[in-house]
Amino acid sequence: MKKTAKKDFLKNPVKHIDIKSFDSTKIIESMKEMSFTSRDTARAAEILNKMINDKDCTIILTIAGSTSGGGCMQIYADMLKYDMVDVIVATGASIVDMDFFEALGFRHYKGTPNVNDKKLRELCIDRIYDTYIDEKQLQICDNTIKKIADSLEKRPYSSREFINEMGKYLIKNAKKKDSLVELAYKHNVPIFCPAFSDSSAGFGLVVHQVENKDKHVSIDSVKDFLELTMIKMKAKTTGLFIIGGGVPKNFAQDTVVCAEVLGKKVPMHKYGVQITVADVRDGACSSSTFKEASSWGKVDTVFEQMVFAEATSVLPLIVSYLYHKRDWKNRKRREWSKFWVN
Amino acid sequence: MKKTAKKDFLKNPVKHIDIKSFDSTKIIESMKEMSFTSRDTARAAEILNKMINDKDCTIILTIAGSTSGGGCMQIYADMLKYDMVDVIVATGASIVDMDFFEALGFRHYKGTPNVNDKKLRELCIDRIYDTYIDEKQLQICDNTIKKIADSLEKRPYSSREFINEMGKYLIKNAKKKDSLVELAYKHNVPIFCPAFSDSSAGFGLVVHQVENKDKHVSIDSVKDFLELTMIKMKAKTTGLFIIGGGVPKNFAQDTVVCAEVLGKKVPMHKYGVQITVADVRDGACSSSTFKEASSWGKVDTVFEQMVFAEATSVLPLIVSYLYHKRDWKNRKRREWSKFWVN
Amino acid sequence: MKKTAKKDFLKNPVKHIDIKSFDSTKIIESMKEMSFTSRDTARAAEILNKMINDKDCTIILTIAGSTSGGGCMQIYADMLKYDMVDVIVATGASIVDMDFFEALGFRHYKGTPNVNDKKLRELCIDRIYDTYIDEKQLQICDNTIKKIADSLEKRPYSSREFINEMGKYLIKNAKKKDSLVELAYKHNVPIFCPAFSDSSAGFGLVVHQVENKDKHVSIDSVKDFLELTMIKMKAKTTGLFIIGGGVPKNFAQDTVVCAEVLGKKVPMHKYGVQITVADVRDGACSSSTFKEASSWGKVDTVFEQMVFAEATSVLPLIVSYLYHKRDWKNRKRREWSKFWVN
Amino acid sequence: MKKTAKKDFLKNPVKHIDIKSFDSTKIIESMKEMSFTSRDTARAAEILNKMINDKDCTIILTIAGSTSGGGCMQIYADMLKYDMVDVIVATGASIVDMDFFEALGFRHYKGTPNVNDKKLRELCIDRIYDTYIDEKQLQICDNTIKKIADSLEKRPYSSREFINEMGKYLIKNAKKKDSLVELAYKHNVPIFCPAFSDSSAGFGLVVHQVENKDKHVSIDSVKDFLELTMIKMKAKTTGLFIIGGGVPKNFAQDTVVCAEVLGKKVPMHKYGVQITVADVRDGACSSSTFKEASSWGKVDTVFEQMVFAEATSVLPLIVSYLYHKRDWKNRKRREWSKFWVN
Repeated sequence: MKKTAKKDFLKNPVKHIDIKSFDSTKIIESMKEMSFTSRDTARAAEILNKMINDKDCTIILTIAGSTSGGGCMQIYADMLKYDMVDVIVATGASIVDMDFFEALGFRHYKGTPNVNDKKLRELCIDRIYDTYIDEKQLQICDNTIKKIADSLEKRPYSSREFINEMGKYLIKNAKKKDSLVELAYKHNVPIFCPAFSDSSAGFGLVVHQVENKDKHVSIDSVKDFLELTMIKMKAKTTGLFIIGGGVPKNFAQDTVVCAEVLGKKVPMHKYGVQITVADVRDGACSSSTFKEASSWGKVDTVFEQMVFAEATSVLPLIVSYLYHKRDWKNRKRREWSKFWVN
Repeated sequence: MKKTAKKDFLKNPVKHIDIKSFDSTKIIESMKEMSFTSRDTARAAEILNKMINDKDCTIILTIAGSTSGGGCMQIYADMLKYDMVDVIVATGASIVDMDFFEALGFRHYKGTPNVNDKKLRELCIDRIYDTYIDEKQLQICDNTIKKIADSLEKRPYSSREFINEMGKYLIKNAKKKDSLVELAYKHNVPIFCPAFSDSSAGFGLVVHQVENKDKHVSIDSVKDFLELTMIKMKAKTTGLFIIGGGVPKNFAQDTVVCAEVLGKKVPMHKYGVQITVADVRDGACSSSTFKEASSWGKVDTVFEQMVFAEATSVLPLIVSYLYHKRDWKNRKRREWSKFWVN
Repeated sequence: MKKTAKKDFLKNPVKHIDIKSFDSTKIIESMKEMSFTSRDTARAAEILNKMINDKDCTIILTIAGSTSGGGCMQIYADMLKYDMVDVIVATGASIVDMDFFEALGFRHYKGTPNVNDKKLRELCIDRIYDTYIDEKQLQICDNTIKKIADSLEKRPYSSREFINEMGKYLIKNAKKKDSLVELAYKHNVPIFCPAFSDSSAGFGLVVHQVENKDKHVSIDSVKDFLELTMIKMKAKTTGLFIIGGGVPKNFAQDTVVCAEVLGKKVPMHKYGVQITVADVRDGACSSSTFKEASSWGKVDTVFEQMVFAEATSVLPLIVSYLYHKRDWKNRKRREWSKFWVN
Repeated sequence: MKKTAKKDFLKNPVKHIDIKSFDSTKIIESMKEMSFTSRDTARAAEILNKMINDKDCTIILTIAGSTSGGGCMQIYADMLKYDMVDVIVATGASIVDMDFFEALGFRHYKGTPNVNDKKLRELCIDRIYDTYIDEKQLQICDNTIKKIADSLEKRPYSSREFINEMGKYLIKNAKKKDSLVELAYKHNVPIFCPAFSDSSAGFGLVVHQVENKDKHVSIDSVKDFLELTMIKMKAKTTGLFIIGGGVPKNFAQDTVVCAEVLGKKVPMHKYGVQITVADVRDGACSSSTFKEASSWGKVDTVFEQMVFAEATSVLPLIVSYLYHKRDWKNRKRREWSKFWVN
C-alpha cells in the first residue's frame, strides 16, 4: 500500500468566501421574521448596520478563534476595505499565523477531524479541527517576524506598532495582496493583539531576543491597553463586533473602565454584537452576555445581540447584508492609526 | 401606567421563510471550500441532493424541536410539495401544535425570552424561547382533534392513520391551505408521530376517551413502528434527514433493526444528515453520531454529515440550495400512504 | 496480528455507583457557598430535599438519555427503595433496554468512543458513546417482551400496565434482583413510557402483533396520558426531578394542562429540578427552562433549579446527599399503582 | 418601597471549598466504573496522580475563566501548598482580580444571573454570571498594582517577574494569608500571565505608564514566552492540567514548538488533562483536543483526558482525590523560580 504523502493531505486549499459575490439581503430580512438563532442573526445584522449609519460611531472588530484561516479571511479584509471597521483587536493567531501567513503566499487546506494525528505529526502538518497547515511554512512565517524585529529600533513596542511594521513589510513583499494586515496599514486602521506572543509572532520574537540579549524589541501589552483606551477616549461613541470572545473581547470592553481610571468619563460601548459558541454558564469572559458587561459599565444594552452560532455559518450572511446595504458608502474613514503619527 | 394587553404581546406573527424567494446556491458552494460548520453545512446539502438523485432512495425526514413554529414551517411543506421527502417522522408538537394549528388559521408570534413569564401566564400566552402562542387557540386545536376522534370508528389507530384523518379534515376545513398535514394527505406522504399523545393531540384524545369510556379511539405506537418498518422493508434504500433528534430520530433509525427482528435483512440507511445543537457526550440518542449508529447497524457512514447548529440558521440555506438545483424534478413520488389503501 | 474478539470488547462491565457507600453531604454543603454549576448542583439537592419533606408532595422522576446504562441504574433503584420517588416517567430505552435488560442478567460494558464502529458492527456490539452492549443479549430482551405480551389478554394497555407485568415477570425470573422495574412493581410505584415502542419493547411487541394479526396487545399512549393526569389530579402537590429532558419531561409537565382540559383546576408542579446538557436556545422542550414552563402554567418558579451538567457527574452527589439526610424516613409511600387495582 | 442597598447585594461571600475537609476517593473510584463524564472525570484524576508519581514530571497548571473567584481559589492554593503543581500559567483576572484581590482582604459575593444589571451598575457592583464584586474594591486592587510598579526599577518585566513582586508585597501586606500569589512566592513556583494587561493589573500599569511617560515598567510578553520555554527545555518531562482553555492553554502548549525553534528538541507534553465547557467544533484553541494538539507536536496522546464539564462541579472531586492519595508527599519541589535568581 502506498503511503499518503504530504502533498496528498495539502491539496485542497481553503477558499475564502467572497460576500460580494452573493446578496444575502433577502435571507436576513426573512430571518428577521423567524425565531431562535435565525432571528438573532438578523437582529445582529441590523444592529451592525445601525453602527455603520451612526456618524459618531467607531466600530471595533474583535477576532478570536480560527475563522480567519477557516474561510472568513476575505470577509474581514472586505469589512476593512469597505469601511465597516475602524479598529481591530485580535488574537495573534488570527493576525500572524493566518492573515500574515497567507499574505506570504501560504495556504490553509481542507482536511478532516477523523484523521490519524500521528501521521500528520510525522509529515509536519498541523491540524485545526478539519483544516491543515504546513508547519514548515509556519516556520517561514516565524522567521519573517524575526527579520522584521531585527530591522527595527530596539525598544518596547505596542503590538499595534509592530503589526504596522508587518503591514509596511507586506507592501513590498506580499505574495498575496490585500491581506487584512496590509489593508490596515494602507487605510490607517490600527490592529491590536493583546497576547501577541501567543502566536507565530512569539516564536520569531523569542529568537530575536535570544540573539539580541541586551538590546532588543519587546512587546509591551500595557502600551496596547493605553493606546486602545486613548482611542476610546477620543472616539467616545463606539460599537463592538465580537467574533469568538477571549482576550480580544475583554480587552476591548475594558477600555471604558480604563478611561475612567485615567480620570476621563467615557460612555459605555453603545452597540454590541457577539457571535460565539461559548457556554454562558461557566462565568468566563468569552461567554459573558452584554447584560453582564453592562453591570461592569462596559457595554450598553439597548442595541446588543448575542448570536450563539459557529461564526463561519452566519458571518457570511451578516456581512453580505451589510455590504449590499451600501450604507458604508456614507462613512468617513476614522484612520485611527494617524493618532500616533508624529 | 397602562397594562400591556394580550394583543400587545401577540401582534408580530412569525412569518415562515420562503426558500424559493432567494437562491442560496452560491453561498453553499462557497461554504464547501471553507472550514468548520460552514463546510459541514455545505456537505449536508450535497448529501441531501445525492439522496434526491438516487432513484432508489426513499427520503425520511424526522422533525423534533420547535423549528416548524419558529419559521421553518413553509420549508417542510415545500420539501413535500417539491418531492424531496417521502416519509415524515415527527414529534406531536411539530405536527399538531404547530402545523395543524396554523392550518386552522392560528399563528405563532415573535416574542422575547426576557419577559415576565408570570404576566404571560395571566394572559394565557405560552412561550417557546422567543416565540408566543395564544393558549386559547391551542385549546381550539385540542378540541378539533377530539372532534375528529369522535367521528372515527372506535379502534386502535397508528398515528399515521390518525394524521391522515387530520389531513382529510383540512381539505374541507383549513383556513390556511397547503399545510404539511394537508399536503401529506394529498400527496400520500405518511406522517408518523411515535409519541403522538405528547402534544395537543393528547389533550383532545384524552377528553375523547373520558367521554367514551368503553369504546374509543386509541393510538397504538406499536402499530406505528410496524408500519414504518414495513416501508423500510419495501423501500430498501433509504436516507435520513434529521432535524433535532429525540424520539423521531431513534424511531426512524430503529426500523433497520426491526426489519431484521421480523426476519427480513435490509440495508442500513444509506444516507444520513442531522442538524442539531445536542451535546455528543451525554450518551443520549439525540446527540449520537452516525458513526455510533453504524455500530448498531442502523446507518451507513459513507454519506453522512452531522451539522452542529441551531436549525433555523442553516436549514433555509440547505433547502434553498436543493430547491434551486431542481434535481427533484426527476424524482417520482413514492406515495407510501397508498401502501395501506385497501 | 490476532483479531480482537467479541469477549475482548465486552470484558469490563459498567458498575453502578452506590450512593450509600459514600456521604456527599459535606461536598454539597460546600458547593452551596461556591458559584456557577457547583452552586446550582447544591441548590438542586436542597430543593429535592424540600420535596421529600413536603408531606403533600408527590415526586415525579423523569429519565431520558442513557444514564441508567451508564452507571446510575442503582441510583434510580435506591431512590425508589428509599421512598424518594412516587412516579416515574421514562424513555423506553431507560426502562427496557437498560434496567429490565440487566435484570435479565445482562450487562453494559465500558468502551471508548474512539473505536472502529465497523468492527463493532461485525461483532454485533452496539455502542452508546463510550459504552458497549451485546446485541445478541438485547435480542433476548426483545423476545422476553414478546413472551410477556403473548401471555396477556389481548387489548390496549397503557405502558404503565405493561411495565407492571414486566415487574411481575421479574419477581419470578430476574437474574439480578432489585431492578427499578421489579422494585416499582413491589412498591406500587407506577412507571410510564410515553414512547414505549421506541425501545427494545417495540421490537418484541411488533413481532407479537405480526404473529397475532387480529387480536393482540397494543400500547395506547393516550391511556398513559390520562392515567398520569389522574395521578396529578389526585396528588395536587407535585415536584419534578427531570434527568435529561425529551418526551418524559414534556409528558410530565403537560399533566397540569391536561387536568385543566378535563375540567379540573390543579396547581402547577410546585417544585422543579432538571439536570441536562441541552442548549436553551433552540426552542426545544428538552432545554426549555422552568421559567418558560411557567408561562404555560406547568411549573411554578419559586423552587426550581436547572443544572447544566452531564448527569453522571452530579447526580451521585445529589442523591447521596438526599440519602444521608435521611428525611425520606418520615415519608409515607404513595403507592400510586394501587389507584388502578380493582 | 425601600431600595436595595449595596450591602444587601454584597452580604453572602463566596466561600472557597476546602478539598481536605472531605475525601472523594470512594466517589472517584466508583466513577471509574461508570460511563460518560463521570468516567472521564475519574480518568482525569488518575492521570493527574500519575503525573504526581512521575519523578521527572514538571506539572504545569493553566487557569482561564472565573473558577478562582467562583469558589476554587483554595483548591489552587492547596495544589501549590501540597506540591502538586510546579508552574502556573493563568489569565490576569484569575491571578490579579481574584486571587491577589482576596489577599488584599476583599471578597466575591454570591449573587444571581437574574438581576437588574442597571441597578448593579448604579451601585458599582460588577457581575460574573451569579457572582458579585464591589468595583470600588477592584479599584483599590488596581491602585495597589500601580504602587508596586512605581516602586520597581523602570524596565521591561516578564509577567512572572512582576507577579513575583506582588507575592513579595503580600508577605508584608496581605490581609488574607496563603493566597496563591503569596504561596507561589514562598515556594518558588513561577506564575505567568501571557495577557497580563487584560486584567486589573492593566489598569494599574496604564496609570503607572501615564504618570511615568519616559521611564516606566513595561510588561514584555515575549520574555514570558522565552522564560516558560526555558523551563520546558530544562524540565523535559511535563504534564498539563488545563482549567478552561484560552491563552494560558495555548501558551503552555506552544513551549514545545518554541524550544524547537530555539534549536532544542524537547519531548511533547507527556500528560494532558483539560476541564472545559468549550465546543470542539469551532476550531478555537480553547476547545481543541489533545489529539489535535498532537498533530502540532505539542501534547502526547497516551495519557490525556478531556473532561467536558463546568470546572467548579468536578474539580473539587478530582483534587480531593489527589490530596487524599498523598502521593504528593514523595515529590520534591521543583522551585523553578530559582532559575532566575542571581
